[in-house]
Amino acid sequence: MKNVGYYNGEYGHIEEMKIPMNDRVVYFGDGIYEATFAVNHTIFALKEHLDRLYRSLSIMEIPFHMTRDELSAELQKMVDLVDTNDSYMVYWQISRGTGMRNHVYPEVGNPNLLITVRKIPMKDIYEKTYKLISLEDIRFLMCNVKTLNLIPNIIASQRAKEANCDEAVLHRGERVTECAHSNISILKNGVFQTAPTDNLILPGITRMHLIELAKEHNIPVKEEPFTRKELREADEIIVTSSSALCIRALELDGKPIGGKDSRTLRTLQDAYLKKFKAETKQPLA
Amino acid sequence: MKNVGYYNGEYGHIEEMKIPMNDRVVYFGDGIYEATFAVNHTIFALKEHLDRLYRSLSIMEIPFHMTRDELSAELQKMVDLVDTNDSYMVYWQISRGTGMRNHVYPEVGNPNLLITVRKIPMKDIYEKTYKLISLEDIRFLMCNVKTLNLIPNIIASQRAKEANCDEAVLHRGERVTECAHSNISILKNGVFQTAPTDNLILPGITRMHLIELAKEHNIPVKEEPFTRKELREADEIIVTSSSALCIRALELDGKPIGGKDSRTLRTLQDAYLKKFKAETKQPLA
Repeated sequence: MKNVGYYNGEYGHIEEMKIPMNDRVVYFGDGIYEATFAVNHTIFALKEHLDRLYRSLSIMEIPFHMTRDELSAELQKMVDLVDTNDSYMVYWQISRGTGMRNHVYPEVGNPNLLITVRKIPMKDIYEKTYKLISLEDIRFLMCNVKTLNLIPNIIASQRAKEANCDEAVLHRGERVTECAHSNISILKNGVFQTAPTDNLILPGITRMHLIELAKEHNIPVKEEPFTRKELREADEIIVTSSSALCIRALELDGKPIGGKDSRTLRTLQDAYLKKFKAETKQPLA
Repeated sequence: MKNVGYYNGEYGHIEEMKIPMNDRVVYFGDGIYEATFAVNHTIFALKEHLDRLYRSLSIMEIPFHMTRDELSAELQKMVDLVDTNDSYMVYWQISRGTGMRNHVYPEVGNPNLLITVRKIPMKDIYEKTYKLISLEDIRFLMCNVKTLNLIPNIIASQRAKEANCDEAVLHRGERVTECAHSNISILKNGVFQTAPTDNLILPGITRMHLIELAKEHNIPVKEEPFTRKELREADEIIVTSSSALCIRALELDGKPIGGKDSRTLRTLQDAYLKKFKAETKQPLA
């Protein structure tokens, strides 16, 4: 099978799968999600994604019934259905439950688990570079939770596409927050700077890994917000996400940015790819 | 039939209806909606709700294919299936389309229409009064669009319920915006004051009607934001929505508010009920 969909234990081709109209995700987007690559039937950084998932569930007060082990087993079962060793994206979301439309939470908790596994090629992080546009960040003030309320994110992504760009950098006034579906960090004078994990950014797994790898490689780390001006004047701009890993950005709103510290950037990218390959049982080349 | 669900031309009991997993509403909450009462198989204020719906579709760039007449016909068909002359809620939502999860809009527009018709008793607007709690407004900055990204609204509604209240009043700092699923207006010294329709509030149909009715009854109208202090010191507080019409609030965060201008309030409530009954072919007494 190529693209597998799963809903509360049943599975089949994604295109043929259905969910109840009364799943609260349909009326409210009332749920949270995670996504990560799997290669060789091995889910990358599963522990970290589960940590964040259960944090999101807790903040959202969704009484999900599965333990980490039970959920991991369901995910692995889906990943094992895929008939390829290539890269594929494992996506899973949990909604608060099913019931007649009503803003308040259902009396009885019955969260729904949805999983998709799709074959998606990985980007070459050395070859691929990003063009960015900047947009005002109009999202709600719970950006630390990976919710399914993603309208501002899809509009920003659409604007980026229309501008022939790869991602949209969001900012609240002068402060850069993150991108439509990535975190963004900079290198300046050899220092890796990234916004702190407050309620304005998603605590990205790749972002967290990069902080760890920077420290391991003696690259100083500064977890402080940076401005649009600092973004424009950075030595390198690194866009990170579970689907793009860590990609260099070289253009912002049609003007060149970054591209001035290939050495530090390469150290981080090499370290990241090494970590990714080791965890997913790939030859290190 | 009592509770009817409809999806792209097919219909049945809501509880048995299903939608494709790949409807973008499932992954992104990527859609908009409307809701209003129907009585005697007559949809109240349909024209106004369609005006707002097509405005939301336009802002959201959703290429919905049905004309107003075609959509009205589908709604009426569902309303006519209900085997009662009592009040019921007609709810309809349109999502951007169906396709493999991808932030950017689908290349080919294929929006989905979902309708539900449910028997729901109307509140007695003279007898029922509201208790409110106040909460910081953390919603995204497109509150003028009636989208399906409603997580902050459901959390606020849940907080209200936990506090044994009926609604949550939201505020950005000192400025009162609206409630979790209603607009809020005040009477002070005989003047009807309500926030202007910027991107921080939904342009409510009932709110709009009340403005018209106030003018017809020589009650001065002020469309200006008001503060939390002005809310606490108002003569009357009126919570308006399509499902609650116009209800007096008498308590905020456990303290009494309003209740000081029954005469003007009653003028507005009488006028509203008269309008509602006339349009839905009910006897006026």
